This record gives sequence, structure tokens and C-alpha cells, in this order.
Amino acid sequence: MKKITKRSENYSEWYLDIIAGADLAEHAPVRGCMIIKPYGYAIWEKMVGILDNMIKGKGVANAYFPLFIPESFLKREAEHVKGFSPELAVVTHGGGKKLEEPLAIRPTSETIIYEAFSRWIQSYRDLPLVINQWANVVRWEMRPRLFLRTTEFLWQEGHTAHATLEEAEKYALMILKDIYEHFAEKYLAMPVHMGQKSEGEKFAGALKTYCIEALMQDGKSLQAGTSHNLGDHFAKSFKVKYFNKDGQTQYACQTSWGVSTRLIGGLIMSHSDDKGLVLPPLIAPIQVIIIPIAREESDPVFKEAKKMQVELSSIYSAKLDERLDLRPGEKYYEWERKGIPIRVEIGPRDLEKNQAVIVRRDTGAKENCQINLLRERVKKLLEEIQANLFATALKRRQENSQNADTWEEFYNAIKRGGYVFSHWCGDETCEAQIKEKVKAVSRCLPLNGTEENGEHYCVHCGKKTSYQKRWIFASAY
Amino acid sequence: MKKITKRSENYSEWYLDIIAGADLAEHAPVRGCMIIKPYGYAIWEKMVGILDNMIKGKGVANAYFPLFIPESFLKREAEHVKGFSPELAVVTHGGGKKLEEPLAIRPTSETIIYEAFSRWIQSYRDLPLVINQWANVVRWEMRPRLFLRTTEFLWQEGHTAHATLEEAEKYALMILKDIYEHFAEKYLAMPVHMGQKSEGEKFAGALKTYCIEALMQDGKSLQAGTSHNLGDHFAKSFKVKYFNKDGQTQYACQTSWGVSTRLIGGLIMSHSDDKGLVLPPLIAPIQVIIIPIAREESDPVFKEAKKMQVELSSIYSAKLDERLDLRPGEKYYEWERKGIPIRVEIGPRDLEKNQAVIVRRDTGAKENCQINLLRERVKKLLEEIQANLFATALKRRQENSQNADTWEEFYNAIKRGGYVFSHWCGDETCEAQIKEKVKAVSRCLPLNGTEENGEHYCVHCGKKTSYQKRWIFASAY
Repeated sequence: MKKITKRSENYSEWYLDIIAGADLAEHAPVRGCMIIKPYGYAIWEKMVGILDNMIKGKGVANAYFPLFIPESFLKREAEHVKGFSPELAVVTHGGGKKLEEPLAIRPTSETIIYEAFSRWIQSYRDLPLVINQWANVVRWEMRPRLFLRTTEFLWQEGHTAHATLEEAEKYALMILKDIYEHFAEKYLAMPVHMGQKSEGEKFAGALKTYCIEALMQDGKSLQAGTSHNLGDHFAKSFKVKYFNKDGQTQYACQTSWGVSTRLIGGLIMSHSDDKGLVLPPLIAPIQVIIIPIAREESDPVFKEAKKMQVELSSIYSAKLDERLDLRPGEKYYEWERKGIPIRVEIGPRDLEKNQAVIVRRDTGAKENCQINLLRERVKKLLEEIQANLFATALKRRQENSQNADTWEEFYNAIKRGGYVFSHWCGDETCEAQIKEKVKAVSRCLPLNGTEENGEHYCVHCGKKTSYQKRWIFASAY
Repeated sequence: MKKITKRSENYSEWYLDIIAGADLAEHAPVRGCMIIKPYGYAIWEKMVGILDNMIKGKGVANAYFPLFIPESFLKREAEHVKGFSPELAVVTHGGGKKLEEPLAIRPTSETIIYEAFSRWIQSYRDLPLVINQWANVVRWEMRPRLFLRTTEFLWQEGHTAHATLEEAEKYALMILKDIYEHFAEKYLAMPVHMGQKSEGEKFAGALKTYCIEALMQDGKSLQAGTSHNLGDHFAKSFKVKYFNKDGQTQYACQTSWGVSTRLIGGLIMSHSDDKGLVLPPLIAPIQVIIIPIAREESDPVFKEAKKMQVELSSIYSAKLDERLDLRPGEKYYEWERKGIPIRVEIGPRDLEKNQAVIVRRDTGAKENCQINLLRERVKKLLEEIQANLFATALKRRQENSQNADTWEEFYNAIKRGGYVFSHWCGDETCEAQIKEKVKAVSRCLPLNGTEENGEHYCVHCGKKTSYQKRWIFASAY
């Protein structure tokens, strides 16, 4: 096993080493694609299970729409096709013949889903229509990075239709806050800023795009989820219309929203250290690993460890490392790399004293624990680890956030990394110039930002701004 | 809502009417593809949940491999490419450029997965390697039928590598019996024959293909799942090799196995009647529908119905039909079309007598039940319905199974429909001739068939056979 590169030495190498060391994924022989290995996929399954419950809890039903989208569908919404056509994979042959119309592989499914919505929706009684899909999507990727940017990735995409713009706006924000922010902060222990994207950064075809943004350990920001208020842009292109109570025809207003396997990249870069992956207990496929220091299954130590596993398994995902051919040190090292929140060791001298050793993955702290108190202690520690990971990430974000009121301050702050809060005009051309100069763009206008009274001027172009809040800027993934 | 065509009038129309009437799926605008609507997808989610647990229970881990397969990979196994190339969808352009090598969209993933296996497996200690994937696959379909044959479908595909051919053979049969047969019969209430496919019908690239076959109500057979012993065919093409205990290099022996959304088609055609879909309780997304005969939520009948729903929900999936703007008759009709196993009705006169009316979907039988006994009675009835659906399907299969010892008997039996049991030579040319004459092929050599002593001769060509058992023939989907 290759040693893990230190974050301070080479952050990109460190990221790849964490993935290889925990055996999460690898590059596929097809350029830009990845193979998600069993342990990586187990993390994704945990995410899917929790998110799926949360989404269903809002009354959203799952469905499945085709992988293929006729090119003509994509072209109906002008902004949409402009945004996505450079990234498309196109099927030109099927069943041994050239197709009459080429088919795009879905980069996202607004067009194919809303064509169906136009048939499913007749009257105001059919609204709101709220659908979710778990699927693979394809966006041709020039600079692929495992989990963060891959040509094919897995995601959920929610799609809704509402009677009014106000309802669509409310729904897009509800998903952002109740599902995405909550999931990121509570389960992934990853603090996020919720906010609105600039015109230049919004989804191709949306009226407004909302996002959650998380700060990674290298001071870059990761867009971890988006929720779009589509207005009636797609409804007009796809004739998603309904009869209102007065019998008049109206266009529906729509939302779409998604999170993807990219979240695994965010999870890795939020908590991991130079020893390997660190997983928050609520998302860890294995929460407790029990390692008996014994050479035979008949050893009383092994038997006691087995009992502990049964006892802990009634509430936690607890695994016994039964391998007899590896030294304890090798096992510790392996599970450390895999980010298991708690390691329980038990050897002959521990057993004599009716105790075990508990080791926390996040802090490395060791303690002895009486075997009969183990279950309670593990419960307490798992809660502490979950809270500590969030607190640590939040503290890091606070230490790497700063206001900038002049271009010089802005320039230096961006160079240092982290989040920079500045007044900004919101103009697309101005944003392009900033990007050119400092390779950073606006991440969002934060929903929870502080209103500052008075007149404000753009930190870059000096124009008077129309916002009372500061925008957040950062280098980004 | 269109009236459901009778099975006796037009079976194909009936099948489509069942799907439309229960709102399960529809044809997509892309030829051959389908949209799985929320209720149809909920059935698939139930199947996935149960199968996923059963598969994991065997120690198989889920993973995810790319959608795209380089054409050169498919060509490495000669039989495999011959079998699948007529059905491929091919991506020739990505990211706005023509690709150097065209990419096939996976029709099945042996090739892309075994290329990874060749890197993951070094020594006998890495075996057996057992992986499963839930994914979409694409096989270009000339005569699409919803759920039964669609260009894109959803499935699981298991892939394993073993040290010896015996282990692979045992594993392929274990999956067939412990997972596929068990799932089909216990959960779908769909009796199946387990057996081995003929040379002409086996999977392209396999050494042996095992299958489960179920009889549909029109007397045709549906291949509902397959499990392949691949021998070392792919291992040789993809260099899946390992060092054995003596340090010698050996090829692994492999299996692959899958079931798909086709199972939903099988489920529909096993139990549904002229009134609509009929679902076995163990696979029904909603097991009990409660319909209060009341016009207002404040009505004591409505309140009692709500209490019943809460009470039943602790063990079953029980739904209250809260709509006040529909007449009870319309509701009955709708839930009948959706195949809900049990309907509970309660009106003012029932409430006076502290009772409710229970109606079985399978038999249509009605009974009164004291409200305090409802939970127990529902439990009993759901078990009875599950058992009755299986028994009815089994009886139908028995009534539509016959032996044929001469070509005339065979010919007439095939024309009548159902399963025909005959001695057969197993020859590919002979099978092609039978197919040409009667449009039926061998379905399998049943694992549970009776050995008949003595010499046997092919029912078609008259050659002496090498099998003691009769093969099963039928027209097939």
C-alpha cells in the first residue's frame, strides 16, 4: 500500500491517496469515467437511503425516465442547449443502423421529463406534480477528478410543476433548506452556505439557481447541491400548461434540484487527515470495528470480541475483524485508512481486567472502558465524533472567511484561499473579469448573510450594487 | 379511463390496458424506451429492496461500473460480441468531438467488469470475488413491449470469480435457487421452472446458462431470470488470473446472473384479471386501502377510518383514501385497477355496528369484520391471498402442461399453448427447425424434472438423446 501524501505537500495527491487507501473508487478504462468500488458504493448507498427517505417524506414519488434524449428536445429551450451541448455524449447508431435523429445521453432530464409533464398535467387539480429520479447522467469531462468531476455520475434529480411562481420559489427553497442543507450539516457534518447563484453561474435555463457551498481543506469551495426555480422557461418550451379554476390556460412554474456522487468528494475533503479517510458516524457504512488481539478463534479474547460485536450490532453497524493472519498493527492501519469512527481493541490483559480499549478516529484519543459499559460509551462517543467533525469543519470555515472592501484586499484574500465576502455588482462581464484576474468566481449571495444598510459599491468595478448583502467569492471545484 | 379489454378478446391489448389502468408505465418519445411512472416504480423499488437484501445476505457487495464500454472490449470474447453486436447503441461523439474509439452503451457488463477483475485479483486469497451492480442497460429492441422488451431497462447483474469450475457451477446454481426461484415463488407468487438452457438459447459467451421460466396466462413462457456459469471463457479473454497455493498461475472461473424490470411484466401476467392489476401482498406498495364512506373530514366515519389506518400502518402498508370529491364506487374501481390486495370500506351503518367491510382483490369476496378484530383478520387474509395467488398460478401451470412423445402430439400441444415436455436431442439445428415449424423453442432442461430410465429419442428429428429428462418447450416472450 502506497503511503498517503501529506495535505501540506500535495493536496491533489493526498485526495487521490485517500481514495486509493480507503479503496473507494478508481479511474475506469473509459476516459473520465470511474469505477465505484464496494466500500465507496456503500457510502453512496448510505447517502441514497437517507436522502430518499427525506425526499419521500416531502411527498415526492420516485419514477424513471429514459437515458436517451432526442437532440430536438434539448434544442427547445435555448439557454439549456447552449449550456449543455458542449458536454453531450451522442448516440448516432443503434441496432446496427444509423439513427434518423441522434440521441443525447441525458446530461440532466428536464427536457425528457417535462415533455411527459405536458401530457400528465391538464388541470390545476394535477398540481403540484412532484417527481424524483435516481439515475446516471453523462457530461463529457475534460479534466476528470474522481467523484468531483466524472463524465458519468450518479445522482438524484427532482422535478416539480406548480400553479404559481411563488409556489415554485417556495418549493425550490424548501428543498435547499429542509433536504440539502439539513443532510449536509446533520449527516455529512459538512457546514454549508445556502445562497443564490449569480446570472453567470446559474443553471442553463433556470430563472434562479440556489446552491449549498462547502469549504474544502485546501480553501476551495465545492458546490454540493443545487435547487433551481425554473420559472415558466421550460413550461413554455414544452407546453406544460393547465386549466386554472376559472377555466383559463396557464403555464406551470417548475423547479428542479439535485445532488450527486460529488457529495462523496465533499465528504472526503471535509474531514480526512494525513492518515486517511475520516467518516462521520451517521454516514459510515461501518461505525465500529472490533479487533481481537488473538491468534485463534478458540481464544477467550476472540470469543469476547465476538460477543461485543453481537451486543453492539443491535444498534450500530459493528464489524468484527476476524482475520487471523494479519498483525493487529496492520489491521489498525487499514481501518484507519477506511475512516471507521471507532476502533475497539481487546487483548488478553484487557480481558483480565474486563475492559477494552476504545480509539477515536477523529482525535486518535484512546481510553479504557469496562466491557459492560461499552455500549453506552460507544453511543456517547459516536455522538461526540459526529458533533466534533462538524465543529472542526465549521471552525476551519470561520478561520478561512474574511471580508474584503477594496480590490487589493479582495485580491490578497482570494490568494490566501477560503471565502471572501464582498459587495459586488452581480454583472456577468464583471464576474468574467474577476475570474480572469484571480481564477475565482462568486459562489453565491448567501441566504443567511447580514443586511448592511447604506450604499455599496462593487469591489471590482466600483459600480453601485443593488444588494444589501455581501456575495461570497472563492476558488472553486 | 379506457375500459380494460378482456383477456379472451385480445390478450396483448389486455396487457397494455392493465399497465395503463394501473398507471404503471408508458412508452417514451424515444422509440423502444419506457417511462416508469411512480406506481410502477414503487413496485420496482419493492423488488429491489427484497432482492438487494437477499443478495447482500449471500455476502455479495454492490459496486458501480461505467455505462460505456469500449468496442474493443466487447470484441475480446468472440461469442459475446456475436450475440450482442446487433443490439448495441453506439456513442460516436462526446464533448463536441468524434471519438477515437466508439463506445458501446453496456448491454451487460461482463467485459468492463472483468477488465477490472483482472487487476483486482492476484492470488487465491482474493477469491471468490463476488460483486453486484444495480444499473440501466441498453439493447436495441425492434419489437418493444412495456416491461418485457424495452431498449433500456433496469436490472441487477451479479459477477463473480472463483478458483475452480466446480465452485462457479455451485455458485450459479445457488443464485438460481436461493435467490431467483425463492424470490419469484415466495414474493411474486409466480411458480417457476428452474432449468438449463440449450446450446442455442444460452447466454452469448457462457459455458452454461440456467434460468427460471414462468408460464403467463396466454400460455407463453417468460424467461424471468438467468444465472450463467461462464467457465473460463471471459477469464481467458480478460486475463482474470490468480496464483494458486502452489504459486502457479490459473484462470478464474466466473458466473454472472441477472433479473430485470421484466419481472414486472411477469408479475402482471401471472395474476391480473379483466378488472385490472392483481398484486401479491408481499410485493404490493400499498397492501390495504381504506375507504371511508363520508363527505366530510369531521364525519365520525372518516375519523374512525383514520384510526384504522394508523392501527394497520404499524404492520402493513395501509393507505387512507382521503379524497372527498369522488364517489366510493369510483374509488373502488380505481384501487381495483391498481391491484391493492385488500380494500376496507366503512360507512355510517358499519360504524353503528362497530364493523367494517373487507373486500379481497383476488377473489372479490366480501366480509364484515368487527373493528377491534380488523388487524388480525387483515393479517390472516393477506397470508391467504399470497398463498391463493401462488396456488392459482400453479394450478394453471399444471393444467397447461403436457407430455408429448410424437411430433404430432408435440405439434398439437404447442398449438394449444402452455408447457410441452418432450425428449429432445438438444441440437441447435434441430431447435431452429422446430422454431420455424411451430414458433416455439426449448425453454430449459428442468433441474427438478423426473429421470426416465431407458433410451429416448428426439421428438422432432428422432435421434437418440443423451438426456434422461424431458426438455420443456413453449412459445416464449
